[in-house]
Amino acid sequence: MRLALEWAARGMFITTPNPRVGCVILRDGALIGAGHTLPAGQPHAEVQALRDAAARGNDVRGATAYVTLEPCSHHGRTPPCADALIEAGLARVVVAVSDPNPLVAGRGMDKLRAAGIAVDYGVLEHEAREMNIGFFSRMERGRPWVRMKSAASLDGGTALHNGRSQWITSQAARDDGHWWRARACAILTGIGTVQEDDPQLTVRAVDTPRQPRRIVIDSRLQISPDAKVLSGGGTWVVAAQPDADKEALLRERGAEVLLLPNARGKVDLPELLRELGRRGINELHVEAGFKLNGSLLRDGCVDELLLYYAPTLLGDAQRMFDLPALEDLSGQRRLAFHELRQIGADLRILARFPSH
Amino acid sequence: MRLALEWAARGMFITTPNPRVGCVILRDGALIGAGHTLPAGQPHAEVQALRDAAARGNDVRGATAYVTLEPCSHHGRTPPCADALIEAGLARVVVAVSDPNPLVAGRGMDKLRAAGIAVDYGVLEHEAREMNIGFFSRMERGRPWVRMKSAASLDGGTALHNGRSQWITSQAARDDGHWWRARACAILTGIGTVQEDDPQLTVRAVDTPRQPRRIVIDSRLQISPDAKVLSGGGTWVVAAQPDADKEALLRERGAEVLLLPNARGKVDLPELLRELGRRGINELHVEAGFKLNGSLLRDGCVDELLLYYAPTLLGDAQRMFDLPALEDLSGQRRLAFHELRQIGADLRILARFPSH
Repeated sequence: MRLALEWAARGMFITTPNPRVGCVILRDGALIGAGHTLPAGQPHAEVQALRDAAARGNDVRGATAYVTLEPCSHHGRTPPCADALIEAGLARVVVAVSDPNPLVAGRGMDKLRAAGIAVDYGVLEHEAREMNIGFFSRMERGRPWVRMKSAASLDGGTALHNGRSQWITSQAARDDGHWWRARACAILTGIGTVQEDDPQLTVRAVDTPRQPRRIVIDSRLQISPDAKVLSGGGTWVVAAQPDADKEALLRERGAEVLLLPNARGKVDLPELLRELGRRGINELHVEAGFKLNGSLLRDGCVDELLLYYAPTLLGDAQRMFDLPALEDLSGQRRLAFHELRQIGADLRILARFPSH
Repeated sequence: MRLALEWAARGMFITTPNPRVGCVILRDGALIGAGHTLPAGQPHAEVQALRDAAARGNDVRGATAYVTLEPCSHHGRTPPCADALIEAGLARVVVAVSDPNPLVAGRGMDKLRAAGIAVDYGVLEHEAREMNIGFFSRMERGRPWVRMKSAASLDGGTALHNGRSQWITSQAARDDGHWWRARACAILTGIGTVQEDDPQLTVRAVDTPRQPRRIVIDSRLQISPDAKVLSGGGTWVVAAQPDADKEALLRERGAEVLLLPNARGKVDLPELLRELGRRGINELHVEAGFKLNGSLLRDGCVDELLLYYAPTLLGDAQRMFDLPALEDLSGQRRLAFHELRQIGADLRILARFPSH
């Protein structure tokens, strides 16, 4: 199953909105076929592994398949993988974790068992869930897994008051940040960051055949049609106030405008997450500034912090999150460290809020 | 030598102002004696190891001694260890690092060689220097190794604006903090912390036969004679303005007042470090507030940060270090991570400034 997870990881950047799945087929301990899920509409891991075995002239009848996610049982854009495994004549299928998709949810394994295939379940289940943390979030909660990235000094400064922040962290940390961008279905930022930094929000430092969707929170549609984040098209601009002229301009730039106002005339962030869930966004990567970061945190819209700390002190400087002063420590929103790691000269922290 | 370093570590809390040294004596790969340096005035590691061998009935003649610091060659409060090793008839002495004490500085090894003992040098030298980082600092720079401890949230808050900070970090991290207190020769704080928190600044969470010296920076001698940091006596209060009445009151409480003013009528912090060097302080542990922390950092009086980060966000809150806003990122004082470790629910960071 470890090997199957390694195969799943090969699809890290490409399978969205589908989960990353790996499949390896073994006979007498020897690997006779392996594959991972391809971009949506193309074959899933199981079919790829069966094809790989066939291409290598290996007979899979009576063999065992290890799959990191329960084989699908429904006709989507591809036929059910459970059927493919049955037809291939496998004797046993080992499944890491069941598919949270309500269209599957155990039916894939039922189908295999009904066909006389031995099914084992729960091997490296935790790791398999982690591999598709966003897909599970979308299926189980109807919203993406939201990972907020920030970079700061040891005393919590992200930039000087004059806006200078290039660069606090090292090249290695900035490249690592692109790996997290690449695996996300979409990257979210705010109009403040667009106006101050004019970022492209594309993946450049790592090799990927797919660029994540870019999303800009821009309540009053202040974005310039020349903003780099619009280049190449496909950007979603999320507003709270309609503006037919501006919307037309943005459509010309290939962008789509979503209107999601709340009662205060700002973008309804929880509703945005639900909308992104409906639109198939599994992992949402947030790279925003002080204000939007604070709003997302206050609204309980963040699952995980991805923080890079550079070994430096900035003193009186801009901060990571616009959060109000607490009256009492009982008002803290505590997280738990998920991973600590040195990246080049910097420290990378993954910290998670308790499940909502 | 690893074993000798483990023996040295047994003296972690007690040898001040002497270095922590371990000595193991081996014959044919078997341990026949071991010891570590005892409190000042009592035997050093080499003599302890020879006594241990004798007590166990082991003959050390022709054996090899591993010592984590060059054996001393001078008569201090104890006779020279080099002489003891020569008299004992050892065949070989392996030394991790030479003694930076100008009274020794190679003469210990010379003495051994002159007596026909084979001397090897430089085994685990880095680890042996680390074991006595404060002693090396005092001998080489005439000032202690200054380790500044702070605890903060991920967004760099140390306490709420109303002063509440109990507790941001976990019990495990607070206990760990006491281990660092215990190994320090002295603990430094400021009058602000004394007035706000009235801390004892003693070691309680770990077992130690010695309490570190307590030092309070108090330019205008505002400290209350009832402050807990004075209890038990021996506290040094460092002022910038004389006040004969207050000084007499403090002396009654067993404290000593040091007058070290600078031109601005504040305590001259670099001069204080030199004075502490003269007074035999190897490792100085700083547990102070925003202002004194900032002053020490601005004056280049800090070698290492010992930071505990709790997985929480405090938002608008008190900060770690009072440092001015930078005009340019080139004004950063960068550090390097020395160690990253999870302690209970919290993260512990050791970060060092480049050598001065």
